[in-house]
Amino acid sequence: MIDLQFVPQSEFKRIKTLNVSPEVRTALYATCCRINALYAIKRAGSGHIGSSFSSLDIVSWLFLNELRLPQDIYFSSKGHDIPGLYAVLIGMGLLEFDRLHTLRRLDGLPGHPDISIPYIETNTGSLGMGISKAKGMVRANRLLGRESKIYVLTGDGELQEGQFWESLQSAGNDGLDEITVIVDHNKIQSDTWVEKVSDLGDLQKKFAAFGWYVERCCGHDFNTLAKVMARLKTVTNRPKIVIADTIKGKGVSFMESTAMTAEQRLYRFHSGAPNDELYTKGVEELVETTNMLLRSLDAEPLTLEKLPALERPAIKELQKLIPAYSQALIEQAQQNSQLVVLDADLALDCGLIPFEEQFPERFFECGIAEQDMVSQAGGMALKGLLPVVHSFACFLSTRPNEQIYNNATEKTKIIYVGSLAGLLPGGPGHSHQSVRDISALAAVPGLQMVEPSCAREVSLALDYCLNHTSQSCYLRLVSIPCEIPYQLPTDYQLEWGKGVTLAEGEDAIIFGYGPVLLPQAYYAAELLKQKYDIKLKVVNLPWLNYVDLDWLGQIVQGYQKIFTLDNHYIISGQCDRIASGLAEIGLLEKVQMKKFGILEIPKCGQNSEVLRVHRLDAESLAADIAAAI
Amino acid sequence: MIDLQFVPQSEFKRIKTLNVSPEVRTALYATCCRINALYAIKRAGSGHIGSSFSSLDIVSWLFLNELRLPQDIYFSSKGHDIPGLYAVLIGMGLLEFDRLHTLRRLDGLPGHPDISIPYIETNTGSLGMGISKAKGMVRANRLLGRESKIYVLTGDGELQEGQFWESLQSAGNDGLDEITVIVDHNKIQSDTWVEKVSDLGDLQKKFAAFGWYVERCCGHDFNTLAKVMARLKTVTNRPKIVIADTIKGKGVSFMESTAMTAEQRLYRFHSGAPNDELYTKGVEELVETTNMLLRSLDAEPLTLEKLPALERPAIKELQKLIPAYSQALIEQAQQNSQLVVLDADLALDCGLIPFEEQFPERFFECGIAEQDMVSQAGGMALKGLLPVVHSFACFLSTRPNEQIYNNATEKTKIIYVGSLAGLLPGGPGHSHQSVRDISALAAVPGLQMVEPSCAREVSLALDYCLNHTSQSCYLRLVSIPCEIPYQLPTDYQLEWGKGVTLAEGEDAIIFGYGPVLLPQAYYAAELLKQKYDIKLKVVNLPWLNYVDLDWLGQIVQGYQKIFTLDNHYIISGQCDRIASGLAEIGLLEKVQMKKFGILEIPKCGQNSEVLRVHRLDAESLAADIAAAI
Repeated sequence: MIDLQFVPQSEFKRIKTLNVSPEVRTALYATCCRINALYAIKRAGSGHIGSSFSSLDIVSWLFLNELRLPQDIYFSSKGHDIPGLYAVLIGMGLLEFDRLHTLRRLDGLPGHPDISIPYIETNTGSLGMGISKAKGMVRANRLLGRESKIYVLTGDGELQEGQFWESLQSAGNDGLDEITVIVDHNKIQSDTWVEKVSDLGDLQKKFAAFGWYVERCCGHDFNTLAKVMARLKTVTNRPKIVIADTIKGKGVSFMESTAMTAEQRLYRFHSGAPNDELYTKGVEELVETTNMLLRSLDAEPLTLEKLPALERPAIKELQKLIPAYSQALIEQAQQNSQLVVLDADLALDCGLIPFEEQFPERFFECGIAEQDMVSQAGGMALKGLLPVVHSFACFLSTRPNEQIYNNATEKTKIIYVGSLAGLLPGGPGHSHQSVRDISALAAVPGLQMVEPSCAREVSLALDYCLNHTSQSCYLRLVSIPCEIPYQLPTDYQLEWGKGVTLAEGEDAIIFGYGPVLLPQAYYAAELLKQKYDIKLKVVNLPWLNYVDLDWLGQIVQGYQKIFTLDNHYIISGQCDRIASGLAEIGLLEKVQMKKFGILEIPKCGQNSEVLRVHRLDAESLAADIAAAI
Repeated sequence: MIDLQFVPQSEFKRIKTLNVSPEVRTALYATCCRINALYAIKRAGSGHIGSSFSSLDIVSWLFLNELRLPQDIYFSSKGHDIPGLYAVLIGMGLLEFDRLHTLRRLDGLPGHPDISIPYIETNTGSLGMGISKAKGMVRANRLLGRESKIYVLTGDGELQEGQFWESLQSAGNDGLDEITVIVDHNKIQSDTWVEKVSDLGDLQKKFAAFGWYVERCCGHDFNTLAKVMARLKTVTNRPKIVIADTIKGKGVSFMESTAMTAEQRLYRFHSGAPNDELYTKGVEELVETTNMLLRSLDAEPLTLEKLPALERPAIKELQKLIPAYSQALIEQAQQNSQLVVLDADLALDCGLIPFEEQFPERFFECGIAEQDMVSQAGGMALKGLLPVVHSFACFLSTRPNEQIYNNATEKTKIIYVGSLAGLLPGGPGHSHQSVRDISALAAVPGLQMVEPSCAREVSLALDYCLNHTSQSCYLRLVSIPCEIPYQLPTDYQLEWGKGVTLAEGEDAIIFGYGPVLLPQAYYAAELLKQKYDIKLKVVNLPWLNYVDLDWLGQIVQGYQKIFTLDNHYIISGQCDRIASGLAEIGLLEKVQMKKFGILEIPKCGQNSEVLRVHRLDAESLAADIAAAI
């Protein structure tokens, strides 16, 4: 285990009292925040370096020199730059210092904004909500007679999102001059260059056309930032927007987007922690930058503190569903020239890079524009293509919810593939933990929803969706690697509404799906046998919004204790299909059902922590099943 | 009953063969289409005159002079101008003439676009999907080697919708010059002037900034239209947009928006049929316009055909929930100065005009921008206000679905009020029949969903939402007047998850909610008693996503036949809450549940027709319940 280094509170205090210009102080402060953001991310094992670093000079400037706290408000609309923001708040003493060590841990600092944390002013979702939220705040402040300036940071990829433009006009019309928006224009969105994904055109002209006062400047040049911010104060009756040209990963040479080569398709430091070597190299560079500056001021070099990196659980043999999906998709595409793929700036995470490389003319990168993507898929389907549409499940099921229904009313065939489905990973927090998608889409007419439980079932499920049904489908994919203790029967085929037994048992029966919770049920069955001599039958039912009543009637025959297990809120999950099925079949004996699933807004934390706190790990399940029996 | 007049097919044929310029022919054609659109709307009893008339000159020009059918495509993105489009298609012989008499009738011409009708190319939803759909079509056409131009009509209020802007950029970047968008810029959205709702600013600059080729012209001047369309053909590598300045209601002097006085808040001819007097006056004016033009050409005057207007069912004593809501809202606002109201351009339909008049500073008209509205409400709630957010249920539950969830994760309190909920009215068609909203929102954490069953329960429900729960709520409101045969007990109070018996009966029990289907259940109970001596207990359970298990256990005690009745798809409706409740309680005897509700995409038609075809009228329910028992 290597040691991880961070800048202690005392050093931030020293920097704040150095007799230097605001510009120099902020430069020192921001670099120290970079060290701490990198520390927090490395310790957490994940987090967004690129946009934390690109925005840190701006955010540091605002907190050190502009905001009148708590009267004024700053928040980020993109949200994934939050490790940087935490570092700033901690350096300012606005958040307890020790929370730096708790990024993405249970009861720690969430992976995306949550207002339960001091000075975090709004929660974020997919993207594009920030200006709308700010407008609501301004209208409330005006009505309640409060004076407060509101600073909103947005991404640049975020500008592809319709709500951003939807929110601009009335702020302009109503002269909401309390609002200052700063675009962290670092030119790279999640996967690659913004201009390659969906070029933004002439932003200055656009914003001006919507009635905003526009400035453009370098987001790393404090002298200019100071002047621009001063100038903004003289502008009244118009909301203000600053296009801040920044560099993604700014501060560590090899993390800077400018270090990317022309051939390089993917930026490597958008999310995720660097390996030990890159971490060490990065922190050395940041420390050296700070010390150079301190030396030039005749000040002492930085004193850092250290903590050992956390032990990671030993890696078992894990199944990865996304690579299995990538491969299955290519195999299907080879057989079907009508198959086209649409993506909303998550090509890497959704496993689409191999497809894009092999079928570039059939790959449509839509940018962060889920509604546009889904309606484009609608148009394509009307004209004879078979679109397969991708995003994270949390966004795909909700942002274009009406567009998916609209397509359904046209009765064309479209496959929606939602990755990052379910409670885990727990690190990104509730905006990314998709545990409401079944409910949000279950009633879309004709939509068949399916979640595979292992790599092999991924390929079967995609084959089913494409070739064995005339209906549109929603393929729900877990993104984390999972240890799979069961094997599907060798002759297993997907049949709509029917499941397959993974473990036999005559005392009780549990229905579940997917590679996160079925293994927990499987292990729970082993524990129940060992500890309580209770024999639990474990059934994989991959269908999320339909159950075959004949099959259900047969499989529950003789069982009085029925359990359901949802990687979803326990309302409108698979549990409701089973309950409805049982009630429709009509039951003769005392049958009782108990639902396991998510009861409250998901917690942020490491995967095992999060499973445990929601009582969905094998031990908790076994205990609760034993108690119920 | 007055007679309704229409222009027969023979007259369209005569106009098409008159030896006149394309401009004069189109003028004649468009005016005849206005007569027929007005006829169809008057006969249907509802429909959109204003935007049919504002767009008819453009649509007529396209079909007579521009489109190469079936190669090229025209569709409307706003969709409610469809009576005008039907008239054009029928005049061209592209739709059977007799369908003119079937607007908004079962198996007739739907109230909004549906691709089951020839030459209707896409279905519409809330607004703003058109360009995205067109882009998808172009990409499909290019991939499949087809050459086709695509003309899309949009509204101007529609430009407030974020997806519109979301869809612009990549069309510009990718040079999709097959697309021509025409903005029917009639300056009035659903309720009133666009500039009063959310002014659009300099549209030419905006569109140009997104990389589109822009023209602006009068949408009623055929000479100019001809020139603009010719010029567009020379533009390559860019999508094209024409801002067509039009007059809402164009063609009938008193329906024209220009006839509105400065003080007039509401435009009267957006939707709904005119009364007999205004109909007659309107058609006379249109006929005279046509005949003047024919006289100037030395041609015979128009020969019209007539049909008597349809009999409307005798008006019974009806309860109207929206006015009851208006009144309750004002009473609440008088007691709570934190209460603010947000609207998305449906102030009249949602019953908000009285509130706006009495509390103008607490009324926020957000325009057709549901996502922005909901996130603004989020910001307001964070800053201490109690926002009550309005739109039609079909839009409110879906378009800002993620934004509602995002607000929920902040645990602020917001009331969402969805009007036009449920299957009826049947005339507008499936885009407006909100039968998926319970599913779409049921799993939003902490959201309490409630639907009142009569005017009195509206006031109780609003009071509950505002004053008797700390949670956010979704208030689901039926907009059509309903005959209510039951009375709530005088001491009735809403208790979360509990219902109230409307009719006693010991043979079976049915759960339902709302003023549309509970009366059907009530009458079904009477029929069952008379015809089959079956005694059905009818229970009003106003809670849509929660049922109190103790209450449920008590009320179903002794019943073996349990029925549920959803004004919603039967997946993820109230039925699932009851089924889940029964399964959790544990069933002691042979209990069987049967679900009534909507099984397929709702049909368009008159209310009684639509209830009947979905087998949700009292007679069908009685028959099906008897059969099940």
